This record gives sequence, structure tokens and C-alpha cells, in this order.
Amino acid sequence: MGNFKEDIAGVEAFVFDVDGVFTDGGITPIPGDDFIRRYYAKDGYAVAYAMRMGYRICIISGGRGELLRMRMKKLKVTKIYLDCMDKIAAMNEFFEEYGINPKRAVFMGDDIPDLECMRAVGIPVCPADAASEVIEASRYVSEYPGGRGCVRDIIEQALRADGKWALDSRGVNGSKDAASR
Amino acid sequence: MGNFKEDIAGVEAFVFDVDGVFTDGGITPIPGDDFIRRYYAKDGYAVAYAMRMGYRICIISGGRGELLRMRMKKLKVTKIYLDCMDKIAAMNEFFEEYGINPKRAVFMGDDIPDLECMRAVGIPVCPADAASEVIEASRYVSEYPGGRGCVRDIIEQALRADGKWALDSRGVNGSKDAASR
Amino acid sequence: MGNFKEDIAGVEAFVFDVDGVFTDGGITPIPGDDFIRRYYAKDGYAVAYAMRMGYRICIISGGRGELLRMRMKKLKVTKIYLDCMDKIAAMNEFFEEYGINPKRAVFMGDDIPDLECMRAVGIPVCPADAASEVIEASRYVSEYPGGRGCVRDIIEQALRADGKWALDSRGVNGSKDAASR
Amino acid sequence: MGNFKEDIAGVEAFVFDVDGVFTDGGITPIPGDDFIRRYYAKDGYAVAYAMRMGYRICIISGGRGELLRMRMKKLKVTKIYLDCMDKIAAMNEFFEEYGINPKRAVFMGDDIPDLECMRAVGIPVCPADAASEVIEASRYVSEYPGGRGCVRDIIEQALRADGKWALDSRGVNGSKDAASR
Repeated sequence: MGNFKEDIAGVEAFVFDVDGVFTDGGITPIPGDDFIRRYYAKDGYAVAYAMRMGYRICIISGGRGELLRMRMKKLKVTKIYLDCMDKIAAMNEFFEEYGINPKRAVFMGDDIPDLECMRAVGIPVCPADAASEVIEASRYVSEYPGGRGCVRDIIEQALRADGKWALDSRGVNGSKDAASR
Repeated sequence: MGNFKEDIAGVEAFVFDVDGVFTDGGITPIPGDDFIRRYYAKDGYAVAYAMRMGYRICIISGGRGELLRMRMKKLKVTKIYLDCMDKIAAMNEFFEEYGINPKRAVFMGDDIPDLECMRAVGIPVCPADAASEVIEASRYVSEYPGGRGCVRDIIEQALRADGKWALDSRGVNGSKDAASR
Repeated sequence: MGNFKEDIAGVEAFVFDVDGVFTDGGITPIPGDDFIRRYYAKDGYAVAYAMRMGYRICIISGGRGELLRMRMKKLKVTKIYLDCMDKIAAMNEFFEEYGINPKRAVFMGDDIPDLECMRAVGIPVCPADAASEVIEASRYVSEYPGGRGCVRDIIEQALRADGKWALDSRGVNGSKDAASR
Repeated sequence: MGNFKEDIAGVEAFVFDVDGVFTDGGITPIPGDDFIRRYYAKDGYAVAYAMRMGYRICIISGGRGELLRMRMKKLKVTKIYLDCMDKIAAMNEFFEEYGINPKRAVFMGDDIPDLECMRAVGIPVCPADAASEVIEASRYVSEYPGGRGCVRDIIEQALRADGKWALDSRGVNGSKDAASR
């Protein structure tokens, strides 16, 4: 484990948990056995932009729901694991399939079920409001909480360090939030 | 009434109100005479984990709604009383049915209708944003408000005191939020 | 205009705006040309309790929507004016119909369209986050913002001053939130 | 570029982004391939009032959704561009169609895709929680974040400077939120 600034500049892939990371942890059951979750436009922009810049992004969540699946599909990330019982196995499959060096991967999680994955990557990070065990296991704690910019923050940090942030002032085809397109 | 740290280590059961405890008190009516309520993933993890560790959990709410019932069913708690006119009678029934000593029970409520139950248990507790009467009647006031971690906090306190917290870094079958599974 | 504490003890009726008072001002359009609004359980308890204690409560809103109408009906307040173009005429009709002395009435509003009514009652009050013009026109500014307890606060202040608060620790038939019953 | 107070008094038109400006950036997918967004009543009042006072208002968003279109239609603004790939082209079309001098226009945006438009108007402004690049490009940063009054704030600033704010204490036909009417 080297210097954080150097390591973040060499990131190849991002792995994100969903509840408490892409959202503030709020889960609202609705009729029809689904859930609504509130995402954040600035996170959506960063994910779409990073994909365009050639980074790999993987979503691994123990949560489920058709709306969750749809949202993640629209973000067009590299790989999506939902309703996932074994996060570490999913992450390893993703790394193997795309030939990613775990040392060059970011994992952002917020709670105890994320700890195993966090210990297996080079750059474990978390939102400001993560569980205390997760904060302890993180190399970087975003100043932003879940659902309010922590995803954007870590992507921005990595791309800035690599000289790839904000190269296109129009954003993704002029759209700030690719997932609402 | 002894030392709080000692008493919390001996907890057998948790009794929770819903609105203002599992939620921030927000109630959103929707078409079809139901309500949506916003829960918190980290609370859901703690409830599922405590059930797995053998604790009894009872929900007693004056609120109603099919979505509320569904959510609480999915959390698979020991007992659920909704649309409840007489909270103290419900709680006593729960204690008798499961042979629970009220002195070894936590009750977490946030408003005046919860006071009677709070006075009948050994460990009355409340969220940071409870009504002033409830704060006065509590032995412990969580630093977290309703819907933002107060349920997680009191469960974590009790299980830590009993050496049972975070024994499984994968969480409940790898899922952070059992209720979205 | 006398002493605020004395005046509040003599209140006969409360008149409330909805958006920004019963809610935080958030308006969420949904399919079917309606809107969802997020209410607060502790406000609901206070309204139901005050009605039980014999106070008159009137709702006057420029907003509309079937869900808004349903919510206010369930709160069983004395009178409801929605989609209201002329708030002062509505309020005067309410006062006349129930023989209420405007000097003994509270009006709680949060924005410019509420100013006319505020100037016509003895006790104009507002949430912490009201528009600056409304704050200036108020005799009391609640420490709570709209949708987070300002309704509860002014009702509690008035009933406490009159020795009528928290007389029933079970609340309204044991229910904290009458509107979710 | 002159004095901000003088320039704001001479405003002819307002151009607003939606996500992160009219909302806090929260995007909630719902069944049926649409999204719910949470607007703010005080913003709605200001937009309706400014239209009544003769200002031109244009909405330019990369976001989409039938509910978004409906909301903006109800606000009855001068021109609406949604699902917009080329914000600067849209804005220029609006300026030409209504003969507006860009130097006398406000643009309020919050993220990188808004930068091009911000650089093309006389009065680029942003919410308190805009992206750092946008804050740098702004002549005025509202103390209010997106969805919590930044739209109201800039409209109020401009109309106050021009002596046109709060001339009608009844608001727009007595309604605070024109979009819920």
C-alpha cells in the first residue's frame, strides 16, 4: 500500500455498493413489492463520464427490486450484481472477467456486509456516514454522505489525479444525468 | 434500576414504535388509501442481524397501511402490532407470550403515546428528535434521529455490550438490507 | 396586542397554510395529475389532540390535489379550503361560521400569499424557514421549519399555556398519527 | 461586466437548469419508466410571480420524463427544452426568438454540462451546492442549495433590485404554488 494520491491516479475500476452509497440509505417500499430509491444527479453524471473515459464500473448490492435493476442498467455500467448473497465472489468474478488488478480497484461501501470486499481491494473508500467498522477499514472517507455526492467525489478524485476530469464542459452529450435520459 | 451499561448487556427483547423511530416521522399518503414511509438500510441490517443472534423484536405502532404491514413482515421480527389502540396491552401480551422479563426489555418510542410503554420497561430509550416528554422518560437518548440510525444504534449498543456485534462481516447472507431482499 | 404568552393561552382557533407549514415545501408531481406531499407524524398527533381538546382548526391552501384533500379530511379538522384563490375571504367565512374572534386566532403561514391573513389575526406565527416578509409579520417564529414540527410547536405552546397539553399519555386512542389510522 | 447589483436590476430573462437547481439533485425512478422529482413551493411562487411581472423564463435540462414535462408546462414558463443534448444551441434559439440580450440574462446551473451556457450570459449564477467548476464560473452563489430556494433567491434578488418584488401580498391569484394549482 503506497501513497493514496498515487494509488488513486492508477485506478482501473470502481466497485460500488448501492444502499447508503448511491442513496442515503433510505428505502421506501411501494405497492407491487418494489422499492423506490432516491439517486443523485451529480453521481449519475460522474458514472456516465467515467464510463466514457474508459473506466470499468461494477455494482454489487444485496438489495433487490425491478426499479433498482432498471436504474443500474440505464447507467450502463460494466457489470451489475443485485440480490447478491456473496459480494466477494461477485467482485472476484468481475475482476477476472475484465482482467482487473484488485490493487488498482476502488471499493466504496458503507456497512458491515461490505467489509470483506473492502479488505480485498487496493483502495477501500466510504461515504461520510458509513458504519464505524467501515470507516476504520477505509483509506479515504469522503466528506459527502451516501446519496449526496460520495460516488461523484471518489470518481472525481481518481479522474483528476489522472488528468481526465472535466475535459468536456458539455458533459455526456449535454446531459447531466445520463440515467434520466 | 442499575447501571445502564450493565442493563443494556442483559437485554432479551426490543420493542419499537414505527413512525419517528424506524422513520423520520414523515408520512406520505399515496393513491389507494395507503402511505409510503422511508426506512433506513442500516436499521434493517441491525434488526435482521439481532434476530439471527436470538433476540426478540416486537413492533407496536398506532399507524396503519398495507405497505407498513408488508415491510414489518419482511423484517421477520418476532411480533407485529399495527393500527394499535392500546400499546401497553399489546406489549404485555408480547412479554407474556415469549416469557420476557420487562426489566430486560428495551422500548424505543418518540412521542406521547409511547410514554406508558416506556414507563413499563427496564430500558426506555428514544431517538435524538423525540418529544421532550419522551426524552425526559428515557434512560438513553440516541445521537441519531428517527429514520437515520436510532434503531441501529440501540441494537448495536446492546449487542456490543453482550459481545455479539459484527461477528459476521458478510452480514445477513451477504445482504445489508434484509427488507429489500 | 398584548403579551404573547397571555395571548397564546387564550387561543380559540388555529388557521394553517399547508405547503411550507404542514410540509417542508416539497411538492412531488406523480402520474395522474396529483402530487405527493410528506407530512410529519408529530404534527398529526398535535392536530388530532387539539381537536379532541375542543379547539377549532382550519386549513387554507392555494394548493390542490386529491391526496391533499384526503389527508386533510382524515385529520378531521373543523374546515378545509383548498385550491383557494382568496385566503382572506375563506378565513373570514370560517371565523363567522364558528363565531371566532380573530384576535383569539393563530394563523401560521410561510410565504407572501399568507400575509393578508396574518395581518388579520391576533397571533400571526410562522415556521423557522418562512419568507423574510412573513417572518417580519409574525409575532412568533417557531424554531422548527415547515414539515418538521412547526405545527406541533405552536399547538403545544398554546395548549401548554392553557394547561391542556399532554393530559393523555396514550394520545389519541393510543395512536400517534391520527391521519395514518 | 459591471457591478452585480446594477446588472441584476436590468435582467430581462432567466434560464434555469432543472436537476440540482429546481430540485436538490435527487432523482427517483418509478414504475413506468418515469422519475419523480421534488420541487419547492417557494420556487414555484417566484417563477409564477416573475412571469406575471413580464420576465421571460426558459428551462433547459438534459433530463427527461413525462412528469418533468408536465411540471414545467404547468409553471407556464416562456420556453422549455428537455432531453436536451445541446444546451447552448437551445439557449441561443430562445434568446433569438424573444430578442433577448444575453448580457441581460441570468443562467442558473449546477454542474459541468451547464458551464458552456454560463459563460455565454451576463449573469451566471448557481446554488450553494453546485459543482466547484460551476461555483468558479458564477458571479453570484446563492446561499440556498438546489431545490431549497435558489430559484426563488435569484428571482427575488432581480425583482427587488428592479422594485418589483412583493407588490401583491395575495401572490398569484392567492396561490403560493402555481404548479400545484
